[in-house]
This record gives sequence, C-alpha cells and structure tokens, in this order.
Amino acid sequence: MSLVISVEKTQNPKEKPDPSSLGFGQVFTDHMFVMDYTEGKGWHDPKIVPYGPMEFEPSTMIFHYGQAIFEGLKAYKTKEGKVLLFRPQKNMERINISNERLCIPEIDTDFALEALKALIKLEKDWIPEAEGTSLYIRPFIIATDPFLGVRPSLTYKFIIILSPVGAYYKEGINPVKIYVESDYVRAVRGGIGYAKTPGNYACSLKSQVEANKKGYTQVLWLDGVEKKYVEEVGTMNVFFNIDNEVITPSLEGSILAGVTRDSTIELLKSWGVKVTERKITIEELYDAHAKGTLIEAFGTGTAAVISPIGELSWNDNVIKINDGKIGSLSSKIYETLTGIQYGKVEDKFGWTVEV
Amino acid sequence: MSLVISVEKTQNPKEKPDPSSLGFGQVFTDHMFVMDYTEGKGWHDPKIVPYGPMEFEPSTMIFHYGQAIFEGLKAYKTKEGKVLLFRPQKNMERINISNERLCIPEIDTDFALEALKALIKLEKDWIPEAEGTSLYIRPFIIATDPFLGVRPSLTYKFIIILSPVGAYYKEGINPVKIYVESDYVRAVRGGIGYAKTPGNYACSLKSQVEANKKGYTQVLWLDGVEKKYVEEVGTMNVFFNIDNEVITPSLEGSILAGVTRDSTIELLKSWGVKVTERKITIEELYDAHAKGTLIEAFGTGTAAVISPIGELSWNDNVIKINDGKIGSLSSKIYETLTGIQYGKVEDKFGWTVEV
Repeated sequence: MSLVISVEKTQNPKEKPDPSSLGFGQVFTDHMFVMDYTEGKGWHDPKIVPYGPMEFEPSTMIFHYGQAIFEGLKAYKTKEGKVLLFRPQKNMERINISNERLCIPEIDTDFALEALKALIKLEKDWIPEAEGTSLYIRPFIIATDPFLGVRPSLTYKFIIILSPVGAYYKEGINPVKIYVESDYVRAVRGGIGYAKTPGNYACSLKSQVEANKKGYTQVLWLDGVEKKYVEEVGTMNVFFNIDNEVITPSLEGSILAGVTRDSTIELLKSWGVKVTERKITIEELYDAHAKGTLIEAFGTGTAAVISPIGELSWNDNVIKINDGKIGSLSSKIYETLTGIQYGKVEDKFGWTVEV
Repeated sequence: MSLVISVEKTQNPKEKPDPSSLGFGQVFTDHMFVMDYTEGKGWHDPKIVPYGPMEFEPSTMIFHYGQAIFEGLKAYKTKEGKVLLFRPQKNMERINISNERLCIPEIDTDFALEALKALIKLEKDWIPEAEGTSLYIRPFIIATDPFLGVRPSLTYKFIIILSPVGAYYKEGINPVKIYVESDYVRAVRGGIGYAKTPGNYACSLKSQVEANKKGYTQVLWLDGVEKKYVEEVGTMNVFFNIDNEVITPSLEGSILAGVTRDSTIELLKSWGVKVTERKITIEELYDAHAKGTLIEAFGTGTAAVISPIGELSWNDNVIKINDGKIGSLSSKIYETLTGIQYGKVEDKFGWTVEV
C-alpha cells in the first residue's frame, strides 16, 4: 500500500502517569492513529493525530448495530531499552478474520502493522519500564454511517489507541476460582464467537457479574448447544493438564483463536509435552479430578498471559485443582512467554518484532 | 420521578425534507433528548438539546464492548392533525428487559415516556403527513466509560433521536422471497436474542448480505441448537397460517418479543382466529405446504407492520406460499393495525396514546 501516514503532533503533551499506580486501560498516550474507509474509495487518509475526543452523530451505526471489531496486544520495553511487539502479525490477521464475519472491509495487514509501529515509535517514552508493565495497544474498527437502516456501513474508522498498563500480577500469581456457567451462553457455532467483536463481550457481562457476586473471579463457558463442552474461561482460552497431556478446546467456530493460546501450544510442543486440541466436556474434567489426573488448569490471554485455575464450581460441585496452587507447567509457560516478550529469554520462535 | 427536563432550542432550524423522497433513518429532526447516568447518582440531567454530533473519547466502552440497547417506534399524524403513538409503554418496558440482560441500570419508564412526548411535541412539525409516512423514534442507551476493562460501565447516555420516514410500501405490498438460514445463527437460548441490543444486529449482517446476493430479501432464522425450529425473519417476528390456525414461535429466550407481534396475536384473537404460540419446525412448514395447508406466512415489525412471505428456500427446496400473493389475513391485519395507528380505525384496545 502506498498510503502515506500524516503526523500531527500534540501541542499539549500530557504528564506520564506514576508507574507504580498504573491500572489497565484508563490512561491513554498523547497520540492515536486514525484511518477512514469510504465505499468506492477504500481505506484512506491514514494519520497520527493528538489523542482526544472525536465527534459522532448520535445516528452513527456503531451506537445501534454494533458493527465493529477490535484487537489487543502489547509493546514491551527490554532492559536494554529496545521495544518489542509479540507476534503482532497474528493480531493484524485476526482483524481480517473478524472483519470478514462482521462485513467490514479488509485491511492491508502489512500497512496496519507499519502504522502501529510508527505510532509506537512516536510514543516510545510512554512505555513503562517497571517489572511486568507494558504499553497496551488497542486497534479497533467501527461502522460510522449516520444511518439507522440495518445493513453493513459504507464508512468506517480504523483507530489505534495506546494505554500504559501496570503489572497484571502485582502480588504474585494466585490461582482463581471459576464458576462453570450452565445458563448463560457466550457464543454458538454459526454465530460470532470466533470474531473479536463487541457483541461477544456485551453478551458475557451478566454472567460475569453474577459469578462475581457468588465469589468467583471468572466464568468457564460451556458450548451453547449441549452445554457440556468447555469453550473459554472469561475472555481467555483454557487449557487442562490431564495425566501430563495438555488439552485445549478445538476451534469450532465459537471460540476465539487466541495468540497466547497458539503460542502456548507451540511452546509445549517444543518441550515435548503432548498437546491435544479437541472437544472436552466438563464431565471429563470432573472425572479426571476424581481419578486424581487433573493436574493443572489455566487460562491464556494477552492481559494475564497465564491465569491458573485453582477451583471450579459446576452445579454446586466444587473441585480444587492442584491444591489451589499454580502448577509447574503454568509457571514455566508464564516465565518463558513473558521472558520472550521482555527480551530476557531467547526467542527461538521468531515471535518478537522490534519497533 | 421528579426530574425536570431542560430545553435548549436550536438557533438553526433545518429545512424539512421533501415528503415524497423520504427514506428510512437518514434525516433527523432539530432536537434530541439526552439524559446521563452516573454510578451513585442515578439517571440525571435530562435535557432536550439541538440535534448534532456529540464528543466521545476513542476509549468509550460502546466502541469496544457493545454494552448498549435500543428501541424503535413511530409517531403518526392523523388526518385531523392529532399525533398518535402506538403502545409506547411496551417499548419503554422492553428497554428495561434489555437493560437487565446487558447490565445497564433500569430507567423510569413513565419518565422516559414523558420525555419522549415532550420531544415529539417540540418536533410536531417534523411528522410527515403523506399516506404511510411517520416519524420514526429511536431511543437508545450506550455505555460511556472511557475505559478498556471488561465490566459494566459506570456511566451511560440515554438518547432519543427522531427521523421522518417515508411509506414502507410505496408501490403496494409485495410478498418477499426468504432464504432459510441453515449455517449462520442469530441467537441461542442463554444468549442475548431476546434483548434489543447491537450485538444481535451485528451478528445478522453477514447472513443478510449473502441472502441478498442469492436474490433473497431476508433470511428466516432457525434455532441455534438443533437448526430446525423457526425463530424470526430478518429483524421481524414471523407467523404462519396453517389450516386456518395461526402459529408463531413461542418466546424461548432467543426471540425478540415484538410489539407488533403481540398486537397481531391480540387482533387475531379478537377476530376469533385460533392463534398458537409454540415451537414450529421448518419441516412442519414444508409438510404443510406439501399438503396444501400452509395458507399464509408473514413477518411483523415496526417498520413494515406486516411483511408477507411469498417464497421460502430451504436447502435448495423452494416453495411458493399463497401463489406469491399477499394473503387475506395478512391484508386484514395490516389494514387494521395501520388504521388504528393513523386514527382511521376505532382503537378498541386502547393501544394509541395521543401526544
């Protein structure tokens, strides 16, 4: 793509937040990337501009019909001061997978990555340096026609915003208690579950809130058809170590193909650990637990990398996994992935991209 | 509720559109209603202000997680110049049903109706008068926290915008060709299908686009579990006249409880027509057609009121219904409902509300 990114620098740079008090997704950097799409013209006018509010007609389609997709990835600063991205091409490719399902025009993934790098270069000083901190990157596309008819929009905005975020595990990794959701359904085959699109998250809120009220951190989603196959945990993919075989639900259309999921599978294979992608029922997990073969369970995602599961509650049957402690495989995956991301562990896979 | 609605009138009233060229949802009136919600404070600061663009941070939750609901209803001008709403309480009640599912705080339905009436009174001259035209009313609520964490927002905006719309059937009512969707799924029990929320519409776009390419106007949705029970047609509820019994899918959690659906059921009952709400399979429809007992099929919704189905295509089996012509019951429902809405037919049900 021969588009040139115009750059308008802010006249009012903000003060950087205190690195020790960083949360998630609350503070944004000085600039953002914006590119427009117009039917017949394609994607045009890519620009980096000061971060700030944008004007939208109240009739804008995104407010009414949710035609949108997003991504989430991070930039990490190494102790040598290099800036690394972790498999950003995968996120750019997933944008187009989501776009296809949501009837949003395809983007040029190479150009999008170039735009992302240009933005991060400009905002380099915003990447926090304290242990475990990073710069969260949120690319997203929204439908912008000021029109109330139900059809794909003819105009869109592709926006990238950046947010310095604190360490996910400030006080060490503590396994979480998970509620197995038997009533609410996140997604079903034939729906939008494999796309990273607002509707999936809107749909998940109620179950999440109710699980929190019952004292659980997240929910484990079951399939929408038979309510017996395990799908995802919260907004993460999920893995189970049963008798030293690591099993993760296969991608059947209702599950997001996570980048950390894929990296975890690759990593385990490289260690000679048996990894299987297949359908797995909640009953099988409980049976394995009864037999003493359910060794570890954990979620994988960009935010936490690895989130060990210490307890499951399914129809009032509570089981404890690995005595509520983090398992050795979970620890090793966490240390290796974060090590690669921060440039502390050799990247044999060629996953990191320097900005 | 003792809230007072402040009113700021526009200094630049727009020119009214040519009534003969009115489409749907493209032109908006001079004013809109806006009310804010803040956690701990509740809904506050209701106001009528000039219609126009609003500012949103790119991090605003609605762009990322789709936490939002909406409604659609119409104001009709009678030939005596009165302004009528059709069962607006039903729409306000449904806002709260949708809100509950999407973790959005409840609204005061009486106050919302009062606000709606105040806005319409101010915009009375925007209600077009030509046959079949009306003023479309779009209340909607969006999550407005500038935050990327996945949780219910702590702030919201409730907005009502108005759009003069043309007659749905400019050239008479022509039954439409419908594609029975066997791959894509709109909603599943346990999901958000019964709520009027963006995610359901985002999810439906692709199937709609593909059906259009194949020469069909809309899709008939089947259930997401067994792919055999009929659910909705496009964005409408659906009815079938089989051997003079009118059958419509029962509300099982994945279907929107339409106001026109409810009104159609009431109307049919008042005429002594047998109406049944139950699960109905696509196979039963095809069997009835083969036996010659599938007399009529039609969709019901606010936009079209009644949309007769002339043809169904299911796995390449095409059937014609009522020889592709509008049925007598469909005609009678359409004439009666629109007659009541425009004040031409006596409203025995007390459905209309004068503004």
